[in-house]
Amino acid sequence: MTRRIHVIGIGAGDPDYVTAQAVRALNDTAVFFAMDKGEGKSDLVALRRTICERFIGHADYRFVELADPPRAKDTDYRQAVADWHAARAAVWAEAIERELPPDGVGAFLAWGDPSLYDSTLRILDAVAQRVDIEYDVIPGITAIQALTARHRIPLNDIGEPVLITTGRRVAADGVDGSAVVMLDGDCAFRSCPPDTRIWWGAYLGTPDELLVSGTVGDVGEKIAELRAQARARHGWIMDTYLLRSG
Amino acid sequence: MTRRIHVIGIGAGDPDYVTAQAVRALNDTAVFFAMDKGEGKSDLVALRRTICERFIGHADYRFVELADPPRAKDTDYRQAVADWHAARAAVWAEAIERELPPDGVGAFLAWGDPSLYDSTLRILDAVAQRVDIEYDVIPGITAIQALTARHRIPLNDIGEPVLITTGRRVAADGVDGSAVVMLDGDCAFRSCPPDTRIWWGAYLGTPDELLVSGTVGDVGEKIAELRAQARARHGWIMDTYLLRSG
Ligand SMILES: C[S@@+](CC[C@H](N)C(=O)[O-])C[C@H]1O[C@@H](n2cnc3c(N)ncnc32)[C@H](O)[C@@H]1O
Ligand SMILES: C[S@@+](CC[C@H](N)C(=O)[O-])C[C@H]1O[C@@H](n2cnc3c(N)ncnc32)[C@H](O)[C@@H]1O
Repeated sequence: MTRRIHVIGIGAGDPDYVTAQAVRALNDTAVFFAMDKGEGKSDLVALRRTICERFIGHADYRFVELADPPRAKDTDYRQAVADWHAARAAVWAEAIERELPPDGVGAFLAWGDPSLYDSTLRILDAVAQRVDIEYDVIPGITAIQALTARHRIPLNDIGEPVLITTGRRVAADGVDGSAVVMLDGDCAFRSCPPDTRIWWGAYLGTPDELLVSGTVGDVGEKIAELRAQARARHGWIMDTYLLRSG
Repeated sequence: MTRRIHVIGIGAGDPDYVTAQAVRALNDTAVFFAMDKGEGKSDLVALRRTICERFIGHADYRFVELADPPRAKDTDYRQAVADWHAARAAVWAEAIERELPPDGVGAFLAWGDPSLYDSTLRILDAVAQRVDIEYDVIPGITAIQALTARHRIPLNDIGEPVLITTGRRVAADGVDGSAVVMLDGDCAFRSCPPDTRIWWGAYLGTPDELLVSGTVGDVGEKIAELRAQARARHGWIMDTYLLRSG
């Protein structure tokens, strides 16, 4: 008798990005644990509910909201993240024991794929050291796949590598070859030479999707403006882009 | 009246990696175009048929095998690939016009995701310059997502980049940080320092799946042996791995 947990990648925007494997795991789950993100990302919470309603064939499941411990204000970023993960692990372990019977099945839904810039697996690893659980991971369509599909482009040049990176890194190190940039609140592409090609996408896979492509010199400012407007209108934004140096 | 083509990512091994969006596109398709790969990869051809049988709700579709033009023996790799793409584009354009009525719907099934080390989109781009077609791209679960899901690991260190690269590149340039290696026929990880961590997977998502993890020093030779044995037994192998330098 062991509590089982599914970590389910739900895809990065379109409910139809859900896989057959994810649908099976969704239907196997009694309790969905979800972080109460607090912020204006209610569209994201809505996607989770839409997916459950659309793909689960019974009514025998429920959501449990987990309070998100405040992120420590340590000066060291890695230490702050580690402290925050430990605090979360304590909250999750306690909730799993409280909400699931000893042979119960719970799940965490991860935006996109659980392996990509997501903390669920790290926290669950710490949870597994506190309570006896078994868990499996169901892959999902990432924002990277959504971006290239919607632009109908290859991710890599023939036989060439691609870097997956963050806005902060691009601003600091620049880009050599192909790079997909995630977690960029600051339009780091503006630091690239004007002949750098860019394929940008926001709210990918959703009815609000925005797509722009060209060179940084030609469309960089346009993207920055569009992004600021969309962010103001929605209260939040998720965007990502592929760069290829000239 | 325009011929429509779906480029459908079918996931990298498990038929249940297919998404709801892919299922819709599969059911919308009358003609599946497939390359006759010649080699012993009949398991891969079999997966395509399994997916169609499992997820298409009618019998009103057929497969058309396209002869694959021989790869030119140019000394320059890029030129050889470009020539080969052009020859394929001619074959595909001709087949699309011959096999589809002017308002027909065809599809190409791409292993994993169509954007990742796959030539379908480049060739279709050239096809679209010869015949009047509209096409869309349906993302799929890549071997990278399959690898991390089966090992239940994050792809990136917190806030850190990840390189997607090839065996050839790893052998030439080494690894700094995290790198996923694809298209490696030669166990390039053996060129890495022994404290490099490796998560290796072959035939991911299939009943023949193999998983090994550890440091290159501890498990590198074991992986090389296992790989050689499996390859001899099956006649082919698909493997990929994540490296993190020590
Ligand atoms: C915390 S990461 C999570 C990534 C997710 N696990 C995945 O597989 O895509 C969030 C970042 O993903 C990107 N992203 C996620 N969904 C997106 C979408 N629908 N459109 C554009 N970007 C998206 C953005 O760069 C955002 O900053
Ligand atoms: C031509 S690339 C195509 C990649 C594919 N488009 C994807 O999204 O995964 C083929 C390479 O993908 C990796 N690969 C694909 N399927 C795999 C599987 N089931 N198990 C392990 N590696 C796989 C191997 O590295 C192989 O050399």
